[in-house]
Amino acid sequence: MRKIEHIGIAVASIEASNIVYTKLLGVPPYKTEEVGSEGVRTSFFRVGESKIELLEATNTESPIHRFIEKRGEGIHHIAFDVEDIEAEIRRLRKEGFTVLNETPKQGADNKKVAFLHPKDANGVLIELCQDISGPGSAGKTAKEG
Amino acid sequence: MRKIEHIGIAVASIEASNIVYTKLLGVPPYKTEEVGSEGVRTSFFRVGESKIELLEATNTESPIHRFIEKRGEGIHHIAFDVEDIEAEIRRLRKEGFTVLNETPKQGADNKKVAFLHPKDANGVLIELCQDISGPGSAGKTAKEG
Repeated sequence: MRKIEHIGIAVASIEASNIVYTKLLGVPPYKTEEVGSEGVRTSFFRVGESKIELLEATNTESPIHRFIEKRGEGIHHIAFDVEDIEAEIRRLRKEGFTVLNETPKQGADNKKVAFLHPKDANGVLIELCQDISGPGSAGKTAKEG
Repeated sequence: MRKIEHIGIAVASIEASNIVYTKLLGVPPYKTEEVGSEGVRTSFFRVGESKIELLEATNTESPIHRFIEKRGEGIHHIAFDVEDIEAEIRRLRKEGFTVLNETPKQGADNKKVAFLHPKDANGVLIELCQDISGPGSAGKTAKEG
């Protein structure tokens, strides 16, 4: 795990929460994005090398809707940046962690992501993230010339 | 807010959880510390510029004991590194946040800390941290020569 990539916070209204977190962090969100497959609308704030991600449910099937119904708004997950998500999944499975995704899936913010079951990490939902957006991303976009 | 200083995770047993988080993060805790005034035993893991702090209650009056009784183990708070905690408290009060500490108090890991009420930040308990440990810490240790 190279760094905390982001902390995901489940919120009821992303518009209202963007105002709160802009005041708190002293910067506005640098982007908002809807991830249809997850039923979420997200916004991202930079804090040092990490981000705060706010997540609002866009339908009642969304995991964020169910989370808020059960526990109220609050911290939903911690995401760690990894260099090679497939290798990290193999390593963590060997260590006894339950990886919830058979293979990594497309997440928000140009990432390949996979989740670990919270029961294995003291109730904390852990996300692994590999950046697939740019030339610095793990060689996947390297071009031979 | 300069960076995520740490994420605090409430755990039932710090010994058992140290093993889990050492496997997860790939590094052992770099220190453990008991904060008698808070009724907690803590351990710290480095992840990039941030830390993961595990917190175990040492008595039933501890906020960590009450948190686990109510919600189970899980993420307890997010701490942000600030350069000048008194200035940040004044700024956030002006923005309408409820600061739970009249003045900053001594926290673990050589920090002056203060907390914001979770009701003001979508259910997230926010800690402000100012490092008071070394020569890089906000001029408090500067010596005139």
